[in-house]
Amino acid sequence: MAGNTFGSHFTLTTFGESHGEAIGGIIDGCPAGLALDFEAIDLEMKRRMPGQSTIVTQRKEPDTVTFLSGIFEGVTTGTPIGFIIENTNQKSQDYSHIKDVYRPSHADYTYDKKYGNRDYRGGGRSSARETAVRVAAGAVAKQLLKDMSFTAYVSSVGELKLTKPYQELDFSVIEQNAVRCADPEMAANMEQLIRKIRKEGDTVGGTISCVVKGVPVGLGEPVFDKLHAQLGKAMLSINAVKGFEFGSGFEGTKLRGSNHNDIFNQDGSTQTNYSGGIQGGISNGEDIYFSVAFKPVATIMQKQETIDSKGNKTSRSLRGAKGGTHSRGNGCFSIGRLLAVK
Amino acid sequence: MAGNTFGSHFTLTTFGESHGEAIGGIIDGCPAGLALDFEAIDLEMKRRMPGQSTIVTQRKEPDTVTFLSGIFEGVTTGTPIGFIIENTNQKSQDYSHIKDVYRPSHADYTYDKKYGNRDYRGGGRSSARETAVRVAAGAVAKQLLKDMSFTAYVSSVGELKLTKPYQELDFSVIEQNAVRCADPEMAANMEQLIRKIRKEGDTVGGTISCVVKGVPVGLGEPVFDKLHAQLGKAMLSINAVKGFEFGSGFEGTKLRGSNHNDIFNQDGSTQTNYSGGIQGGISNGEDIYFSVAFKPVATIMQKQETIDSKGNKTSRSLRGAKGGTHSRGNGCFSIGRLLAVK
Amino acid sequence: MAGNTFGSHFTLTTFGESHGEAIGGIIDGCPAGLALDFEAIDLEMKRRMPGQSTIVTQRKEPDTVTFLSGIFEGVTTGTPIGFIIENTNQKSQDYSHIKDVYRPSHADYTYDKKYGNRDYRGGGRSSARETAVRVAAGAVAKQLLKDMSFTAYVSSVGELKLTKPYQELDFSVIEQNAVRCADPEMAANMEQLIRKIRKEGDTVGGTISCVVKGVPVGLGEPVFDKLHAQLGKAMLSINAVKGFEFGSGFEGTKLRGSNHNDIFNQDGSTQTNYSGGIQGGISNGEDIYFSVAFKPVATIMQKQETIDSKGNKTSRSLRGAKGGTHSRGNGCFSIGRLLAVK
Amino acid sequence: MAGNTFGSHFTLTTFGESHGEAIGGIIDGCPAGLALDFEAIDLEMKRRMPGQSTIVTQRKEPDTVTFLSGIFEGVTTGTPIGFIIENTNQKSQDYSHIKDVYRPSHADYTYDKKYGNRDYRGGGRSSARETAVRVAAGAVAKQLLKDMSFTAYVSSVGELKLTKPYQELDFSVIEQNAVRCADPEMAANMEQLIRKIRKEGDTVGGTISCVVKGVPVGLGEPVFDKLHAQLGKAMLSINAVKGFEFGSGFEGTKLRGSNHNDIFNQDGSTQTNYSGGIQGGISNGEDIYFSVAFKPVATIMQKQETIDSKGNKTSRSLRGAKGGTHSRGNGCFSIGRLLAVK
Repeated sequence: MAGNTFGSHFTLTTFGESHGEAIGGIIDGCPAGLALDFEAIDLEMKRRMPGQSTIVTQRKEPDTVTFLSGIFEGVTTGTPIGFIIENTNQKSQDYSHIKDVYRPSHADYTYDKKYGNRDYRGGGRSSARETAVRVAAGAVAKQLLKDMSFTAYVSSVGELKLTKPYQELDFSVIEQNAVRCADPEMAANMEQLIRKIRKEGDTVGGTISCVVKGVPVGLGEPVFDKLHAQLGKAMLSINAVKGFEFGSGFEGTKLRGSNHNDIFNQDGSTQTNYSGGIQGGISNGEDIYFSVAFKPVATIMQKQETIDSKGNKTSRSLRGAKGGTHSRGNGCFSIGRLLAVK
Repeated sequence: MAGNTFGSHFTLTTFGESHGEAIGGIIDGCPAGLALDFEAIDLEMKRRMPGQSTIVTQRKEPDTVTFLSGIFEGVTTGTPIGFIIENTNQKSQDYSHIKDVYRPSHADYTYDKKYGNRDYRGGGRSSARETAVRVAAGAVAKQLLKDMSFTAYVSSVGELKLTKPYQELDFSVIEQNAVRCADPEMAANMEQLIRKIRKEGDTVGGTISCVVKGVPVGLGEPVFDKLHAQLGKAMLSINAVKGFEFGSGFEGTKLRGSNHNDIFNQDGSTQTNYSGGIQGGISNGEDIYFSVAFKPVATIMQKQETIDSKGNKTSRSLRGAKGGTHSRGNGCFSIGRLLAVK
Repeated sequence: MAGNTFGSHFTLTTFGESHGEAIGGIIDGCPAGLALDFEAIDLEMKRRMPGQSTIVTQRKEPDTVTFLSGIFEGVTTGTPIGFIIENTNQKSQDYSHIKDVYRPSHADYTYDKKYGNRDYRGGGRSSARETAVRVAAGAVAKQLLKDMSFTAYVSSVGELKLTKPYQELDFSVIEQNAVRCADPEMAANMEQLIRKIRKEGDTVGGTISCVVKGVPVGLGEPVFDKLHAQLGKAMLSINAVKGFEFGSGFEGTKLRGSNHNDIFNQDGSTQTNYSGGIQGGISNGEDIYFSVAFKPVATIMQKQETIDSKGNKTSRSLRGAKGGTHSRGNGCFSIGRLLAVK
Repeated sequence: MAGNTFGSHFTLTTFGESHGEAIGGIIDGCPAGLALDFEAIDLEMKRRMPGQSTIVTQRKEPDTVTFLSGIFEGVTTGTPIGFIIENTNQKSQDYSHIKDVYRPSHADYTYDKKYGNRDYRGGGRSSARETAVRVAAGAVAKQLLKDMSFTAYVSSVGELKLTKPYQELDFSVIEQNAVRCADPEMAANMEQLIRKIRKEGDTVGGTISCVVKGVPVGLGEPVFDKLHAQLGKAMLSINAVKGFEFGSGFEGTKLRGSNHNDIFNQDGSTQTNYSGGIQGGISNGEDIYFSVAFKPVATIMQKQETIDSKGNKTSRSLRGAKGGTHSRGNGCFSIGRLLAVK
C-alpha cells in the first residue's frame, strides 16, 4: 500500500520528483469558507526556498504554488484543493554522473531494490524538494488555525546546543539570522561552524525545536493515534530525520516521578510542563514542544568510495543537490502546523 | 475519527479498559496457512505480565489469550482473528478514591475534557494494560516473521546508561535478570537503584532499545509511511513514551557527513550502520536498531497535591495500579515485532 | 488488504465464523455520553434471529450480545466498544459431509482458492450468521440517531411484488406477519408461495425495501463517498445481494428529464422525490428509499450435482444451514440504520 | 472526512471543478516497471470526450492528460503519478444566470447547504466533467491488466432495451454507432428516440452494461469489501447513477434456487453464470457482468419552475452544460477497468 497520504480530516496526498515537470498535492477535507491569504502562503514558500543564505544549498527554486481547484473567488469551497509547484530548474545533465552509482546514505540503493526503476535526477522522489509541497499545505493549514502559533528554530548544530528552556528564548530573532537560531550569539557561533565545515567540503547535523501555543484541549485519538504519535510520525517522515522527542523527552527519563509529575493549578493548567502539552495522547492546553534530530546531509563535497548498480567499486565526488545543512528546517516548521490541525 | 487501529496489511484494532470485563482485539489481514504455536504466544504474555519480580507493579494478571475466530484446527484461515483477554482482577472498590480526582501527569484530566465521561477504574482505556493486546497480536506477527529476530532490552534507568554499542552486548543475559538489561553488571546496578527509589515511594524513567535482525530489503512506503515513521508512531503510541530515535539518533547530529555516511561493500551491505537499517524510509537489509524514552511512572507512593473535577485542591496518595518502572518493556518489544511486518 | 472494517466515523470491524466459539466486533468512534437501551438492542437481535417462523431457517441462535468495553455504568465513554455473540449451536458433526465438497453458488470454492484453508462448518466466515454482528452494531447506531426512523420490509418474493409506492403502505403491519411484508394481503400470498416452494425442497429470491425518514441535509462525501455509494456498498456486502437501487432506480431510466426532475417548493423540499433523498451524493432532507435484490438461497433440499476439492463429480443433498428465504431481511434493516450514521 | 479517494492498492485521489483551471488526480500505488502506452490513454480520453456525435452534449473538451510525476523515460517508477487535464473551455459568463438559482435535481441545493459556498459555474465539483479524471486513471489501470478485457455498452435507452444475453451480442459494433449499443438495429432505434426527445428539449435515462473477461480467481475482500460491493460503490459514485446490479441481478430474485445455482464443471468453472463471476464476494474466474442505471440528464432545454437561494420562486431555462444523454457512458467503462484492479 502506497504511503503518500497523511492525515484524516485535513488530508494531504503528494506527488512529484525533484526534476520532473512539477511537484504538487491534493488537500482533501479543508473546510469551506476559508478566505485564503495567498501572500502569506507565498511568504512561507520563500522561507523554505533554498539558496537564501550562503550557508545552505544554492539551488534556486522560485516555488510558486498554483492552485487549481477547491477555491472560488479566493475562498475555499470544501472540495479538494489541487495545487502544483513547477520545477523550473530541470538540469538533467547534472545528474548523469550518478545515474548508475549508489550514493552512500542516500535512498539510491533502497529505491532501486524496492522499485527496480528510479528517477536518478537529484534524488527523484527521495529528494527533500518534496517538502515544498508540505510547506504549501501547511501554509493553508496555518490559516485554519488562526488562534494557534507555531514557532520552529534551530536548537543545535553539531556540538553547539541551545540549553536554555524555550521560555527564555527570544523568538523574534529567529528570522534575523541565517541559521534561524532563537539566540543571536549562538546563531553567530553556529554560522561560523557551518562555514568552517562547508569549507572542508563536509556537512554536519543538528536539531530543530518547535513550540506550539494556543492548542485547544482534547486533540489526539488514543490508543494508536495519540497526538504525539501522529506528530512524531509526521516529523520522522521528513528527509534526514533520525529522532523525535516531546516534552521532557530523553532527558526526562533521568528524573524521578515526584519531580516529573506536572502538578495542577485549580484551573486545570499545570505548574510545570514536562508532559509537553499532551497527556494520555490528548492535548491538555499547555504548550506543545518537541525536538527533531537531523543527520548530517549525506551529500558532501569530498570524494567518497561507493559502488555502482553492478556492485563495482568506484570513488568519486557525488554531489547532487549541493550539500548544505538546514534547508529542511522549514519543512519541519510547516509540518508542525499541519499536524496540529488534526 | 477514532484511532484504535494500526497497520495496513496486518491490521490490529483493539478495545478494552483496565477494569472492564475484558480487553481484546481483531487482527485483520493475517495470511492464511500459518500454523500457530500457542505456547509461544502464552510465553510472550507471561513475559509481559506484571508482578514477575519484586521491582515492578505487583498486580497479578494471568492474561490468557482466548482466540475466537480466524483459526481452524490450529491454522490461520485468512479471516479476521478475534481474541479476548479477560480482566480477572476487577476490584472496583480500589479506585473509588480517584473517581473525582485528576492524578497529575495521568490521562484523567484530558479524557474527562475530551469525552466528558470516563471509566476511572485503574486508568480505564488509558491504562498500560492495553498493551497486553499488542503483545498478543505481536506474538502472532512474530510467528509470521520466522526469519527475523527481535530483541529488546532496558538500556538506561535514570542516570544509569548502557554505553556500549549493541553489537558488544550479550543478549542471552536479558531474560536472566529482573530489569531485562543486556549487561549483568549494569543490571545489578539498575536493580539496586530501582529498589532504592521504590523504597522512597518514588519512580524513575528509562530507555528501552530494540534490535531487529534479518530484515528484508524494501520495507517502507515513502514519503509519509517511511518505515521508521511508522515504527516511531507505534513506539510513541505506547503509554509513557516521550521519545524515539533510530540509527545514530540524536547523538548522530553531532557528526560530520564524511563520518556519518555508511560506505557500501560490494554486496550492497554497509561498513557502518549509522542509518540504522533504513535509508530514504526503506529498509536496506542492515540491522534496524532504535531506542525509546519512557518517562518516570506517574503513579507514585507519596502524597501529591492535585485537583478534583470541580477544581478543588486536594492532597492525597493517588496510587492506582501500584507504581513501578518497566512493566511496559515487553509492550515495546512486541510492537517492534508487529511493526516489522509491514 | 483485508476488508472487515466499514465506516469512517462510526467504524465497525467484525470477526467470526458460523461455528467458531463466537462472532463479534469493535465499534470505534461511537460518541461518548450515549445512555444505551440494552433491551432495545436485545429486541433487534431477536428480530434477526432465525427460526422465528416456520418459513425460514430453523436453527436456533439466542444471539445475546455481551459488551466488553466502551460502556461505563450504561453510558458510552467514547472508547472502542468491543462485543461478542457466542455461538451456542456448534454442531460440527453436521458439516462433515461438506468438508471436501464445493456447494454450488456458495463461497466454498472461492474461499478455498483464495485462502487455501477454510472453516467448512456452516459456511464459516461466509455464513450469513456474520450479519448478526451488523445488527448489534446497527442497534447501537440507531440509538445515536433518535430523530431518524428506519423501516425495512419485504417488497417482493419471486414474482409477487408490491407495486404501491411506499407512501401508500402501512408500515405498522410489517411485524405482524411472518414475511415482514408491508401489506397484509400480499404477505399472505407471499407466505403461501414460500410454503409451497419450501415443500418442493426449493428456495426463491426476493427484494427488501427500506425507507429512512428524518435525514438531515448534508450527509455524503462526493465524489467517491457519495451517500448512496456508501449505502449501496453496505447493502451489496450483505450475503446473497445481487443489486441495489435508490430513488427512481432502474425504472426511472425510462422517464424523461422533464418528468423526473424534482421541482422545489419554496422551503427547499421537493414536490416529487425521484432523487430518493440524495442529490449530487448528498442528502437533501427528503426521505431516502432504496431496494435490495436477494438471490434465492443457494442451500436447497434437493440432490444437486457438484464437485469435490479434487475435481471429482459428486451428487448429493448439500444442506448446511437449512434453506429458507428471508432470514437476511433484518441484516438489511440494521445496515440501513448503520449507514445512515455516516 | 472528505471522500475524494478510491481504492486501496491502486489508489486514485481526484480534484477539480468543471470551470476551474484544471482537473486532475494522483494515482498512488501503481506498480513500478509499467511501460505506458500514451496513445492508448489519449484514445480513451477521446472516447469519453463530449461532442463526438450530434446526440450528446456539444461542449468541446480536448482533455489532454499531462503527467507530472511517477513516470521516468516512459516507465512507471512506483512513486505517485500526478496528472492534470486543463479546462480549456472556461466561459464563466455562461453561468451567471444560474449563480443564485437551484436547478431541479442537480447538486446546487445540497452543495450550498453542506458547504455554504459553491463554484456555480457548470456544476463545479458536481459536474460530470470530474469523470474525465477517472477515465485517465482507468486507462493506466487497464494497461496493468493486460490479460483482462473490459467491454461496456448502452443496454437501454428509455423503454428501448437490449434483451439478449451478452453472450449473443456482437461487441465489435459498439464503437461503430453513435449510441454505443452492442446491436446495430437497436442502436438505430435508440438514436432515433434520442433525436426525437432532444428535439423536444428533453432528455431520457438509460442503462449501461459491462462485461469483464479474464478475471483471475480470488479478487475481493469479504465481508465488507466484497468485490461486487466495491464495484457497486464505484459505479454508484458516477454522476446520475441510480442503481447497480450484477449477475442475475433484480431479475434473478424471481428464480428458484434449483435453477439459479451455478453447477460446477470438473475444472471449477460453472455451467451457468447467474453468480456473475463472483461468489461470496470473491471472483471465481467466470465473466463478471453488471448493469448500471442512469437517470435522465437533469439539464433540459425547457423552462422549469424552481427557487433561488433566498427561496423565491423563479421560472426559466436552466441549461448549463447543455443536455444530452450518454456522455457518461465512458466514465462507467473506465471505472469498470479501474475496479477490476483491486
